[in-house]
Amino acid sequence: MSWSIYTNSTDRKQLALEESLYFTGNGYIGIRGNLEEENASSDSIVGTYINGFYDDVPIPYGEKMHGFPDYQQKLLNVIDPQSIVIWVGTGEDREKLSLLTGKVVDYKRALHMDKGFSERYIHWRSKQGHELKITFKRLASFKRKNLFFQQIFLCPVTKNIPIQIISSLNGNVTNYTNPNDPRVGNDASKRLFVKHMKQQNGQSYIELQTKVSELSVAALSELKVHHDHVTYNHFMQNGELISKATFVLKEKTTIGKRTFFADTLRYTNLEQTLGLAREEASVFSFFDIQTEQQDYLASFWKKTDIIIEKDHSLQEAIRFNLFHILQSTGQDGRSNIAAKGLSGEGYEGHYFWDTEIYLLPIYTMTNPEMAKKLLFYRYSILPQAKQRAYEMGHSQGALFPWRTISGTECSSFFPAGTAQYHISADIAHSYIQYYLATDDVEFMKQAGAEMLVETARLWMDVGHFTKNSFRIDAITGPDEYTCIVNNNYYTNVMAKQNLRWAVKICTFLQETDTECWGKLKSRLNISYKELDCFEKAAQKMYLPVDEKLKINPQDDTFLQKAKWDFKHTSKDKYPLLLHYHPLTIYRYQVCKQADTVLAHLLQEDEQSEVVMKNSYDYYERITPHDSSLSTCVFSMMAARLTYLDKAYDYYLQAARLDLDDVQGNTKDGLHMANMGGTWMGIVVGFAGMRIKESGLYFRPQLPTKWNKYTFSIQYKGRMLHIIMTKKTFTIELLKGSPLLIHVWDKPVQLINKEVITNSVSRGMLNGKSIYF
Amino acid sequence: MSWSIYTNSTDRKQLALEESLYFTGNGYIGIRGNLEEENASSDSIVGTYINGFYDDVPIPYGEKMHGFPDYQQKLLNVIDPQSIVIWVGTGEDREKLSLLTGKVVDYKRALHMDKGFSERYIHWRSKQGHELKITFKRLASFKRKNLFFQQIFLCPVTKNIPIQIISSLNGNVTNYTNPNDPRVGNDASKRLFVKHMKQQNGQSYIELQTKVSELSVAALSELKVHHDHVTYNHFMQNGELISKATFVLKEKTTIGKRTFFADTLRYTNLEQTLGLAREEASVFSFFDIQTEQQDYLASFWKKTDIIIEKDHSLQEAIRFNLFHILQSTGQDGRSNIAAKGLSGEGYEGHYFWDTEIYLLPIYTMTNPEMAKKLLFYRYSILPQAKQRAYEMGHSQGALFPWRTISGTECSSFFPAGTAQYHISADIAHSYIQYYLATDDVEFMKQAGAEMLVETARLWMDVGHFTKNSFRIDAITGPDEYTCIVNNNYYTNVMAKQNLRWAVKICTFLQETDTECWGKLKSRLNISYKELDCFEKAAQKMYLPVDEKLKINPQDDTFLQKAKWDFKHTSKDKYPLLLHYHPLTIYRYQVCKQADTVLAHLLQEDEQSEVVMKNSYDYYERITPHDSSLSTCVFSMMAARLTYLDKAYDYYLQAARLDLDDVQGNTKDGLHMANMGGTWMGIVVGFAGMRIKESGLYFRPQLPTKWNKYTFSIQYKGRMLHIIMTKKTFTIELLKGSPLLIHVWDKPVQLINKEVITNSVSRGMLNGKSIYF
Repeated sequence: MSWSIYTNSTDRKQLALEESLYFTGNGYIGIRGNLEEENASSDSIVGTYINGFYDDVPIPYGEKMHGFPDYQQKLLNVIDPQSIVIWVGTGEDREKLSLLTGKVVDYKRALHMDKGFSERYIHWRSKQGHELKITFKRLASFKRKNLFFQQIFLCPVTKNIPIQIISSLNGNVTNYTNPNDPRVGNDASKRLFVKHMKQQNGQSYIELQTKVSELSVAALSELKVHHDHVTYNHFMQNGELISKATFVLKEKTTIGKRTFFADTLRYTNLEQTLGLAREEASVFSFFDIQTEQQDYLASFWKKTDIIIEKDHSLQEAIRFNLFHILQSTGQDGRSNIAAKGLSGEGYEGHYFWDTEIYLLPIYTMTNPEMAKKLLFYRYSILPQAKQRAYEMGHSQGALFPWRTISGTECSSFFPAGTAQYHISADIAHSYIQYYLATDDVEFMKQAGAEMLVETARLWMDVGHFTKNSFRIDAITGPDEYTCIVNNNYYTNVMAKQNLRWAVKICTFLQETDTECWGKLKSRLNISYKELDCFEKAAQKMYLPVDEKLKINPQDDTFLQKAKWDFKHTSKDKYPLLLHYHPLTIYRYQVCKQADTVLAHLLQEDEQSEVVMKNSYDYYERITPHDSSLSTCVFSMMAARLTYLDKAYDYYLQAARLDLDDVQGNTKDGLHMANMGGTWMGIVVGFAGMRIKESGLYFRPQLPTKWNKYTFSIQYKGRMLHIIMTKKTFTIELLKGSPLLIHVWDKPVQLINKEVITNSVSRGMLNGKSIYF
Repeated sequence: MSWSIYTNSTDRKQLALEESLYFTGNGYIGIRGNLEEENASSDSIVGTYINGFYDDVPIPYGEKMHGFPDYQQKLLNVIDPQSIVIWVGTGEDREKLSLLTGKVVDYKRALHMDKGFSERYIHWRSKQGHELKITFKRLASFKRKNLFFQQIFLCPVTKNIPIQIISSLNGNVTNYTNPNDPRVGNDASKRLFVKHMKQQNGQSYIELQTKVSELSVAALSELKVHHDHVTYNHFMQNGELISKATFVLKEKTTIGKRTFFADTLRYTNLEQTLGLAREEASVFSFFDIQTEQQDYLASFWKKTDIIIEKDHSLQEAIRFNLFHILQSTGQDGRSNIAAKGLSGEGYEGHYFWDTEIYLLPIYTMTNPEMAKKLLFYRYSILPQAKQRAYEMGHSQGALFPWRTISGTECSSFFPAGTAQYHISADIAHSYIQYYLATDDVEFMKQAGAEMLVETARLWMDVGHFTKNSFRIDAITGPDEYTCIVNNNYYTNVMAKQNLRWAVKICTFLQETDTECWGKLKSRLNISYKELDCFEKAAQKMYLPVDEKLKINPQDDTFLQKAKWDFKHTSKDKYPLLLHYHPLTIYRYQVCKQADTVLAHLLQEDEQSEVVMKNSYDYYERITPHDSSLSTCVFSMMAARLTYLDKAYDYYLQAARLDLDDVQGNTKDGLHMANMGGTWMGIVVGFAGMRIKESGLYFRPQLPTKWNKYTFSIQYKGRMLHIIMTKKTFTIELLKGSPLLIHVWDKPVQLINKEVITNSVSRGMLNGKSIYF
């Protein structure tokens, strides 16, 4: 149940949306669900992406100031492998198979999240009376990262149908431009140029090079019709490599098209790489590859699946979200998860803090090896982050770019970009969480300690001591409706953790591995005095509580501003950023998204229950959730405060955001961070899981409408299975040694399986707080 | 003495600088001092401008947000009338007269501020042995705004010199682009295209049209050689109209070139307009026109000149500055004074608050009719200011653009642009000052009252009441090193005056002219309740004093930030904005320019002497004066606080800023606001003149190095002449009825001439405060 999504819509206006929803990827390549049989139309956004493959595009400025980046990286739409046009009939009467012409007797599209492929089935009758059934299948192989495999299955209904297949490998590619948006010129969209192309032994090979970054991408494609009497014809024209296959369809016939991708970010000899990849895969049929795929996914789902009993709609959404996250996750240590994954070009394919705060927790808790790859990506761009800190006038430290692909800052509007210094603390937080969940000391020695020290150094340079406190001025917190402020609570509390953990990890290494510590200390030039300063700054970190409201002010002046007049703001004025000048928005108490509320979610031990609850109540009233990163956080924090109905309502809003195209922009790509929030909403939200230095914590609750949810996590080499029902909260230790955990802050010794009967169900029903 | 500036430099590297310093203009046209005999070179910036004549150029953005302007207006370099190339000799041996070839026996350039023309004298010997003396004169006629008149006087030293004059009227024009700055593309620089050109009866006529704004500019030019045997030859090529004149130079010969300009902002039929202007001027020789010019300037200097006895360097600077201000001042009610006047293209020829705060006081006090023209310009763009307020999300009021030509916002970096809401209060301030200095009730009825009400309405919408105060959030004050703040002291105190005067003027009209009031009230839909709200907001305006420091904080959080580390900032790091990212600068207590100090200069009655003094001391330490608008304010405020030596030092820094090219960028145009500050430095600074509701005030002082200064002002129909010496402060009432004034806050009845003997000289010598 709920392992597939389906559509039978032939509505052209839904096309671009479906292309995002049905995209197939494997973390290296991502191919939008464009229709094989159609040429691109204005309804469609044609896209094939390679994770982290970009060009540098000059950023225009009306007034450019010192330190503004000159170039923005842009994820490129690379060689298009998808097109397979089918002509039916001969001579002047021949007809192109299409959903737009002839008679579509039946049509269905599916994406199978357990099997890892998508398919489309068309039962079609031509005007001339030819009738046939076609199934297109496609997958991006998780085990063979270079391979995109398409299969066409033709089943004749009428007899002897003359068929011509025209398959293309197209190097004539540009990035998507909106014809209604004149600001995006051709210069910004045409970034790839043919370097080399050839056809040989029925194989098409093409290599493109970028305009500025001087990276190359190549594809090798091969069409095979499994039919006894086929005439092939291969030719090249204008950057496109065409293979024609002509035959008469008399019985069920299978056609395979394999396209292999490689790029110079990862490989030195592209042609050789692709030749080898083709060679290795050549003995396997689509069925073989798909079986591999299913095995891969079985392992994934075993670790990562969440089951919500008897709620098909949510169950579908959760699996859909997790599957697309997997499809978008770079697993090679040199790529990451873009804001839109590999599903579209929104946000130029940039990596943001979304990974660390909304997505990494999934991998950290279910697949630490993949988490480590993502953490290594950040470590790989540490040199650029140190360089950026220098460019921004800092004498030390690492300032990670607000948005980037290969590590340089790509934000061209700094108040809601570069100024979001918190990303450095967010990255530090993800390292700390990973360490607490895995005890992976080797990783901390290899990368983690250095990352924590260099990010901590940034805070020492950005912030300053006053008599009684350590303060951080002129930065922007997560809420982009309030920019360039002093002492943003979120930033300060995250920086505090960052500073403290830089000291902790150094102290730990000093105590446990003097040789490693000696080397690190010398290489990074760490002094004990410096560590003392980190500790002092953490201790003195300014974290004010408004005495009257008993909340944490978002920043030094936030509470002094007038409140936004929501009463007189009509619905069509949201999201506000599309209808008001930033300055107008900055003038009021209005939050684009969770800010202080997110700080409480991540650092709950920094404040009392009362302050967190009051803050939630306060900020909820002034947050229209104009960012897709907001509702999942409010859901989790509502759960934390036992506002269970609220938690459930927010959860619903978040879970199907893309499936139901709630924001109307899923055509530009899926909202990855929000998707991550769906997993977190259960595990961190309803189950109340926290990873702390003192161990693993749960505060389990069950929304009244549900009967049960289950999920698994990994923790310090163990595998735990969690089952929450109306009556019991059960934790099974599937693998690993016994463990002391905390449930509703009470210690529970987990040896094999603990079934905790509780008053949860009653608590749920009346919506009050629950105590064990 | 000190009526002319001179140079005999032939250094090409000084060329662009000299072109600014020696430019000639009349408030309508401005022509840089390009060399007639040379073609443009990379050392030169060729420029001819018409005040307010612009094209709209698209503004590029990396990330564009709601309300960001789409277009920026740009003052255009229009038809070039200057070129007059002189060939000496015949055939292949002929040589081009040039400072670069042959032998320059003598060379001198001059600008005559009393006579209103510039000239260059060249004594030249060609390689072939021809020797002659040439004088080029040029003027832009103040009385005939369309006319630019060049005269060449040729005096042969050797006999029978074959001469060919090649005069050009060039429509092939682009705006200046720096070849080292790739951001300024051709699209931004080539904005004018030939619409029509012809030659007829020895006259050249050309009309150009802009690319986007669809404005046209035309020029009519005529070359006349006063010689009995001249052969003329006229032809057109590639957007250029050429007139050749060939003759043999046997005796002193005069050549005249008259070029007339007109544009469709002011005229409907350009060709007819120019024909008439030519006709009217045709009977007058260069001498006649220059005599007119001198009469005009005699009247100007009589009203405006400041004399500082026996300080040639400063005297020269003051006259130079005043003369160039006059040359740059739009006098037609539809143009203004650009940041660089009509001397260059810096700041795209935009009008800023510079006019109201740094330049208008001169005209208000010496030439109220011209002040009124400048005020009418602002009134003419009131509709756009109301529209802009609406675009920025305000339900009412007028938000004047931070930089503009025809009234639309042209700022593309809003934190240091649009966010400077204070410009609306600055404009209101200039209306109030004009009214207080002139009693021009008619003008207030016609425009002033409406301007005060509409600007006051802006503050009501931007600001908000809290329990005890009225606050203004999310704006930027004059100091661009601190952006988007709450309760900038300058803005609040200026808004307070704005609000209060909107009420005052309405109350005055209500009491004195019920018909006028009735009409205004109805047309602007003013209610008494609204006026009460204005008054209440003014009363409650939040103007905090820091209790400990006893200063006005620049804004709500300014004093909490760390101080900039001036000690470790090397000299080559100034101005900071060219070496640090804005965010880094925002993080510290460091001021680009006078902010709170300027507020005290303009609104001295809002604070105690102690707070003003402490504030001055505090902000002086953290202000590197990276803006040319700063030192003159510090000079005036130092004088106010009787820091006489400081006042003098700052005055010196300001006065010769352009003449000595202190900032190294005078080649891009003269710094008009700073030039205005030179007049203000004497009148408002050393003489301590203030115009208040309660009358005219002086606090005269004399720098120890001076013996005497004198100047004249007009006040409510009177003309006053002021003479300050070491021993006496004398005020002569040259015209008008008796008047009660205040000198050092003591009332003085001025009937004819008051000579106040004082202790000033002693006070000066020991640098202490002076009391009468």
